[in-house]
Amino acid sequence: MISTALYIALGGGLLALMFVVGKTRWIYRQEVTNPTLKKIGGHIAEGAMAFLSREYKVLTPFILLVTILLAVGNQGALRLQSVAFLLGAVASALAGFIGMRVATAANSRTTQAANDNGLNAALQVAFSGGSVMGMSVVGLALIGLFLVLFFGICVYGADEVTLDTVILPLGTAFSLGASSTALFSRVGGGIFTKAADVGADLVGKVEAGIPEDDYRNPATIADNVGDNVGDVAGMGADLFESFVGSIVGSMILGLSLNARAELKIKLMLLPLLVAAVGVVASIAGTFVVRTKPGSDPQKALNAGTFGAAGAATVFVFILMKVLIGDETYGNVGIYHIFGATIIGLVAGVVIGQVTEYYTGTEKKPVVSILKATETGPATTIITGISVGMRSAFPTVLIVAAAVLCSYLLAGLYGVGIAAVGMLVTLGIQLAVDAYGPIADNAGGLAEMAELPRSVRQITDSLDAVGNTTAAIGKGFAIGSAALTAIILFSSFKDQAGIGTVDITNTNVIVGMLIGSVIPFLFSALTMSAVGKAAYQMIAEVRRQFREMPGILAGTQAPDYRRCIDISTQSALKEMLPPGLVALIAPVLVGFLGGNQMLLGLLIGVTITGVGLAIFMSNSGGAWDNAKKMAEAEEEGGRSSEAYKAAVVGDTVGDPFKDTAGPALNILIKLMSMVALVIAPMLQAYWG
Amino acid sequence: MISTALYIALGGGLLALMFVVGKTRWIYRQEVTNPTLKKIGGHIAEGAMAFLSREYKVLTPFILLVTILLAVGNQGALRLQSVAFLLGAVASALAGFIGMRVATAANSRTTQAANDNGLNAALQVAFSGGSVMGMSVVGLALIGLFLVLFFGICVYGADEVTLDTVILPLGTAFSLGASSTALFSRVGGGIFTKAADVGADLVGKVEAGIPEDDYRNPATIADNVGDNVGDVAGMGADLFESFVGSIVGSMILGLSLNARAELKIKLMLLPLLVAAVGVVASIAGTFVVRTKPGSDPQKALNAGTFGAAGAATVFVFILMKVLIGDETYGNVGIYHIFGATIIGLVAGVVIGQVTEYYTGTEKKPVVSILKATETGPATTIITGISVGMRSAFPTVLIVAAAVLCSYLLAGLYGVGIAAVGMLVTLGIQLAVDAYGPIADNAGGLAEMAELPRSVRQITDSLDAVGNTTAAIGKGFAIGSAALTAIILFSSFKDQAGIGTVDITNTNVIVGMLIGSVIPFLFSALTMSAVGKAAYQMIAEVRRQFREMPGILAGTQAPDYRRCIDISTQSALKEMLPPGLVALIAPVLVGFLGGNQMLLGLLIGVTITGVGLAIFMSNSGGAWDNAKKMAEAEEEGGRSSEAYKAAVVGDTVGDPFKDTAGPALNILIKLMSMVALVIAPMLQAYWG
Repeated sequence: MISTALYIALGGGLLALMFVVGKTRWIYRQEVTNPTLKKIGGHIAEGAMAFLSREYKVLTPFILLVTILLAVGNQGALRLQSVAFLLGAVASALAGFIGMRVATAANSRTTQAANDNGLNAALQVAFSGGSVMGMSVVGLALIGLFLVLFFGICVYGADEVTLDTVILPLGTAFSLGASSTALFSRVGGGIFTKAADVGADLVGKVEAGIPEDDYRNPATIADNVGDNVGDVAGMGADLFESFVGSIVGSMILGLSLNARAELKIKLMLLPLLVAAVGVVASIAGTFVVRTKPGSDPQKALNAGTFGAAGAATVFVFILMKVLIGDETYGNVGIYHIFGATIIGLVAGVVIGQVTEYYTGTEKKPVVSILKATETGPATTIITGISVGMRSAFPTVLIVAAAVLCSYLLAGLYGVGIAAVGMLVTLGIQLAVDAYGPIADNAGGLAEMAELPRSVRQITDSLDAVGNTTAAIGKGFAIGSAALTAIILFSSFKDQAGIGTVDITNTNVIVGMLIGSVIPFLFSALTMSAVGKAAYQMIAEVRRQFREMPGILAGTQAPDYRRCIDISTQSALKEMLPPGLVALIAPVLVGFLGGNQMLLGLLIGVTITGVGLAIFMSNSGGAWDNAKKMAEAEEEGGRSSEAYKAAVVGDTVGDPFKDTAGPALNILIKLMSMVALVIAPMLQAYWG
Repeated sequence: MISTALYIALGGGLLALMFVVGKTRWIYRQEVTNPTLKKIGGHIAEGAMAFLSREYKVLTPFILLVTILLAVGNQGALRLQSVAFLLGAVASALAGFIGMRVATAANSRTTQAANDNGLNAALQVAFSGGSVMGMSVVGLALIGLFLVLFFGICVYGADEVTLDTVILPLGTAFSLGASSTALFSRVGGGIFTKAADVGADLVGKVEAGIPEDDYRNPATIADNVGDNVGDVAGMGADLFESFVGSIVGSMILGLSLNARAELKIKLMLLPLLVAAVGVVASIAGTFVVRTKPGSDPQKALNAGTFGAAGAATVFVFILMKVLIGDETYGNVGIYHIFGATIIGLVAGVVIGQVTEYYTGTEKKPVVSILKATETGPATTIITGISVGMRSAFPTVLIVAAAVLCSYLLAGLYGVGIAAVGMLVTLGIQLAVDAYGPIADNAGGLAEMAELPRSVRQITDSLDAVGNTTAAIGKGFAIGSAALTAIILFSSFKDQAGIGTVDITNTNVIVGMLIGSVIPFLFSALTMSAVGKAAYQMIAEVRRQFREMPGILAGTQAPDYRRCIDISTQSALKEMLPPGLVALIAPVLVGFLGGNQMLLGLLIGVTITGVGLAIFMSNSGGAWDNAKKMAEAEEEGGRSSEAYKAAVVGDTVGDPFKDTAGPALNILIKLMSMVALVIAPMLQAYWG
């Protein structure tokens, strides 16, 4: 039975990759006929690839080091964790690579399609580009898990003890590999994108007075590269990690259930199978995404995601009917487990809605920020921070309710299944997320290539939707990170063989205290990294304007490459300290303070990190949209002081929502993952 | 023995109050001869009293309601909790009243002394005013505790069971009464002071271009009243709560020790006795505070606090030698317990130093903010937030180290004693804190009364020290709040008869999740309250300038009273929602979700609240001092754009450091206190 399930997972993964190949070929078949568009699009693609390859080069020694540590630090079969880790790191990197490559090919083709064939054609290209990212993530995740588990079982067998002590730990190591790449992609990408953005805006827009995305701005290509680096590769890596983490975590919880041996194996395999049928549902959903002139592209995207969710519900139910049937453990039967899956799915959607309320244009919170811009930047900042902090409350209540309800239905395993359920349609969810930067880039390209206004209007209508999907995607990413982290630290407790951990135990309290400030430290480090990188970018753009006067006159091409280089270098340099904090803290606390303190640390990080991540992401999103509203009003002739205040809010929000906030998601998962991987070593060390 | 100990506590309290009476009479003997000074000083005193009396009026029905609920909800002897609660509320209010009354008398007398007799004379008056506040707090706290415990013992006896089930719960209720007043004083005072401050600055300084503290500004008196309301009454109430909470919490932990019955009683009484000898040490310290022209007043204040700390160390050791001698329980003897006390004392001092580093002028973090002002308000905000977040890390590590070390020495009781140790010299610590706003007011009065520049120089040198002491005081308040909260929720666990609480229990996780976002919600509510109140103040000041053109010409007196009224009204209206969140959340969670979820809630609030409070307080303090540095530079002729950016930072920092941040201290303690008081009811309810 185990083999069948693994083959199904492999099948799901291969199906996703076939979809990727098909879509990619289709996208490349679309031709870019406008030569300027082709040239600039080429610059962006080249810059993105240059960043990625250098990032991976920086990561390689580090990944190899951890691989060696895992080979040396472990004993017996667990030495294979090193290979699994390496595979996870490579798979995540590969998903990022494919996603970026196709996204940066799709952007100019979207502009071209908007020019040649109008709204629906442009939407098709942009969304196809996004769906390549989404399907690469789920496909490579499933294939990677298949390889690790299948190989482990072939060598060591599939009895219960081996599964628990060897096979699943291999899955965890795979997951950690993915997380490690994810962390650096998120942090590095977040620093890159915001340094470029701030540099382009501050010197180009404010000082030189040229429009956004103007081809004369030396940082503009870097800015467009940054959108891909942060929102395609970064977001993809983030959810790759959640996806794999929630599957592996639930598998561990499934195996530790108090049920008949055969049912236990089935429940262990269920998360993997749910993920596999989710691929089919996601692919089905992509076929519904189409629109017509004058219609809102949002509706098309909603049709796709809701369609996929509906299909997934049906598929998952059939799957459970076949796999579990009438079997029960304790009071838990198929309806309880199915219910937990649906709770996860619904919670994800509701969190998205809440996020949209707090960050959407025309909604009350954003309007309150807009009103605050009238009394200057200080009140704009205070109101925005207040909106973000307030939004954390309902969001976390939904997470808490999902945890509680899924637990009441099916225990801790139910919580795991809820996390998997939240991510069941990840393929299309990510497609919608990655669609955002492609549409954004397409607009920038239309501007830089000086295409007719009608083209810009089409790309703008695609882009406007992208902002909302980005906000919703971020909410969703945090929700799944919270659930995944809870499963992971519960699995850690299980794997490390820790008995009851009393919450008022001093070691636990000390662990929680230390854990609670790591998200603050981490955010501070990532934000000041953006500051430093932006500072260098500002200096470079100023230098180019000063030394090459032909740039602003339009007679001389700016040195785009230099700006990309600067963003790349500072991002790669600055991503290391926060990344190392995340990786080293659990190891230090685990070996110096013990398992109980480590568990406290994980919980402290999760509890504080979730609230802080929501606050920062939503404050940033709300400022962004308040600026958009102020922009519209300013064109209508209103106060330009208020507009300037709105720009300040937006600039503060940039590192909040694109660097620190999303990186916290990975932080909380990664630290639990590190703990889970070193659990056997800790058990050996502490006895 | 119990009676002797209680009489000693009473003696300590009476000694403190005698000091208060003596100092107050001395202050009132200093005459204010300058008629303008007298008049304006009168306005401030009157405004402060008007605010306090209206605040207490708003609180009265609420306090009575809780009193009735405690009388009705409890059974048997515990009904007396209602009376203890009422007494605590009244004692805390009374301390605030005395402190404010004397502080607002000392401010004009400080200015007069600076004018007549120079630096040391002015320092003496200002510091004496502060010491009245400090000694009122510790005096009334000790006397109140004496009354509650003594009365309880007289009626119900002093056997161990009664102590555990009746007497100490009465102490808790007393503590909760103090907390409730404290919360509203802190929140209401914080809103009042910042609304007035922002209104005065934004319309007076920025729009009308008149200097700070100019008598033509209608909001200037309200601004000066606000300093007292926030930093005297608010801070006093905050630490009144920590003081009583840490004593009562440690008493509960002492009684629950596994020791010989007699030793247990002794250890239960120890916290009370430590606090009593601390009074003597604090009073001794006040005699060392004196300075001479040209010398730094900071040195004088340091001499006082360090002198008191040294004296306290000696006194506490003697006390323990007499009380405990060679007795031990388990491995714990006098040196362990004494060690824990010293750990608390030292941790308090070190936290103060760290806070000073992160918020002090000329220090690296503040200089980095100053540098960021050159690239505008956005980078100023990002850097300031980053500094505050970073500062949370070392501060919490110190708290964690203090918890760990004191625990290793003497178990949970050691942690309790460390918290008591941190507050042993509270009398003089608070004197130094409350000295700040008096010196600040004295400067404002010198300006408004148009006294010679030499007077302003003296008050400025006093005020400069006040900013540092305020920052240190805030760090200290947070440190003690964290320790107190830990003791309180540990005592809650004890009192509610909850056995082991597993950290991965879903109810606990859900409680922690909910708890973790309450500080965010609370901060959002208090900050938007400041926004709303400031908005009304801005409108009023603009109205007065518009409708009474004589004000700016200096021919017409502004309507100060109307501004005070507006600040008062909005503060009192806006303080209710955040206050009710703090009070109701634990009750709801306790009765709906159960004890385990409630414990999770308390821990979630504490863990997140501490980090957030440090971040907000220190970001605010750092911006404040960056603005001071920018001001100095601007007078030296540098960029005024940078100065404007610094002002934006300072304005954002105001509600951070004076409203939301410090109010979080009370939030975390109050919620645990509510839980502790309802523990017997919960036990009856859940069985």
